[in-house]
Amino acid sequence: MRLARIVHHGAAVTAFVTGDGAVYPLADPVGGVDDLLSLSADDIRALEQRILARIEGGELAAAMPESWLPPLARPGKVIGVAMNNSAFARPSFRYFDKPAFFMKSPSCLIGHGETIVMREEYGLTHPEPELACVIGRRGHHLDEATARDVVFGYTIINDVTSVGLKDEDSLHLEFNKANPGQSPAPWRRARDEHDWDVFLTYHFRSKCTDGFGPIGPWITTADAVPNPDALGIRAWLGERKIAEDSTAKLSFSIANVLAHLSRYTALDPGDIVHFGTAIDPTQYALREANMLRDPSDVRIEIDGLGTLSNPVRVVEDA
Amino acid sequence: MRLARIVHHGAAVTAFVTGDGAVYPLADPVGGVDDLLSLSADDIRALEQRILARIEGGELAAAMPESWLPPLARPGKVIGVAMNNSAFARPSFRYFDKPAFFMKSPSCLIGHGETIVMREEYGLTHPEPELACVIGRRGHHLDEATARDVVFGYTIINDVTSVGLKDEDSLHLEFNKANPGQSPAPWRRARDEHDWDVFLTYHFRSKCTDGFGPIGPWITTADAVPNPDALGIRAWLGERKIAEDSTAKLSFSIANVLAHLSRYTALDPGDIVHFGTAIDPTQYALREANMLRDPSDVRIEIDGLGTLSNPVRVVEDA
Repeated sequence: MRLARIVHHGAAVTAFVTGDGAVYPLADPVGGVDDLLSLSADDIRALEQRILARIEGGELAAAMPESWLPPLARPGKVIGVAMNNSAFARPSFRYFDKPAFFMKSPSCLIGHGETIVMREEYGLTHPEPELACVIGRRGHHLDEATARDVVFGYTIINDVTSVGLKDEDSLHLEFNKANPGQSPAPWRRARDEHDWDVFLTYHFRSKCTDGFGPIGPWITTADAVPNPDALGIRAWLGERKIAEDSTAKLSFSIANVLAHLSRYTALDPGDIVHFGTAIDPTQYALREANMLRDPSDVRIEIDGLGTLSNPVRVVEDA
Repeated sequence: MRLARIVHHGAAVTAFVTGDGAVYPLADPVGGVDDLLSLSADDIRALEQRILARIEGGELAAAMPESWLPPLARPGKVIGVAMNNSAFARPSFRYFDKPAFFMKSPSCLIGHGETIVMREEYGLTHPEPELACVIGRRGHHLDEATARDVVFGYTIINDVTSVGLKDEDSLHLEFNKANPGQSPAPWRRARDEHDWDVFLTYHFRSKCTDGFGPIGPWITTADAVPNPDALGIRAWLGERKIAEDSTAKLSFSIANVLAHLSRYTALDPGDIVHFGTAIDPTQYALREANMLRDPSDVRIEIDGLGTLSNPVRVVEDA
């Protein structure tokens, strides 16, 4: 079942989206998607059957959404997985042993079709086409074998990332001078004395600036996504294809990510986890996908989940 | 006025805390602190007068809280400022020109007196004593001159940080090999060929693991904190003093932080911003404040805001 949140007759409502893309605004007895998160797979299928019967019976009318909203009205925390693509895991890296996480801000989420507003000061900014899941049931210290049971459904997120802001928010610290007597971690010593330096990057502006989180167009419930670990992902900036990948190439699978993450934080209904970009940096150079220099539509397609598309507009710095 | 959220007769209620620390659980007509955020300074003073009159009239009874909760029931996003202390800004650094931000997770917030649970795998983990503010009014593109008008009140946060997890979640990338043809930012080239390397750290586990956000004990409304830019901060781990500082030593003032931050994200009622640690790394070596090796109480005192104290307990890895 596909559930969206749209503006219809000027108000935010939940909508049912059919397999061929017709959109049916729902009223009573279906509340917001947020209120459906705890439904079991059986309840979801029963709800879908009731809605389909009402469509067939002519009780519901399809409509063009006035606009699309992020599919959750009250998203919880939004957590991304860094560089979770086997293309990043070549020998020249000191790569992660386990998935590494960062937070995306609920404030930066925008719906399908909403404009990503860019400012010159953001510098090089690229889209990151990613699979996201919406948590339906609280999960803490999950086993990998059952971790996916907490997922309500899947959607598409564009984890917009500004390399320019990331660079401004990076710090270079000469470890010895600032922390006399302390030793850095062994892996930092691999090369020379300068490996004692510490580089730290803080990701809020580069990941969470207004508009940096297009999401949707809808949530596809988990029962309709039997294998989220093998979904094709394609993305375009204007006419240029910038990604052609599959979630099969994630370094850490969806269940592995959820199990590891839930060792450190409880996952709550309404939380969103997204799994890492499908852009292979050696195949599609990120600097060629610069939304600032090429403010075209960003379009992301994931098998079975639809197409998330957002125009880009560059405005004068405030 | 000081407002807390406590457990009283087994239920979470709002409480009024007097200047001498007596705690008065409130019932109707005072809702949760979350519902008071939009009150004007005049409304807050009027509410305080009404509560004081009821205390004087014997209508309210003081009580010992069964436990303390984070002062907001529904915190929004929680945003910290990285290394915002003039002690970090010595010439040996490539320091920030503007405040750099990261997110703390609402899920990791715990109340005054609640236990910070540590696991061996966290490695070196230290407290970071910090001033926090609670946003009361939406603010976007704020001017520095009026930025503090959006603050509902101030409280104490312990921005617990695991250096061990931070190190595990750091990536070392040989820039040239992975991104042929791309140039790194000029400042990365300052030393030698290895400055072309990229180091990236992702902060979720090191900053947002369960229990890493003690906050409280209460919110002191902004009218009672005339100069948040000159508050003494002291902290202890057990008997060892680990910080003696003042918010006057922040590299970026409260108004500067809020103005800069609000250029990139709207601040919403219930959001929390915290301003950077008061620990001077040259004066109090962080490795000497290791909560894993010295699981004593962490106590943080800020002038006029009270004392936030949390026991630490080390458990076996799950």
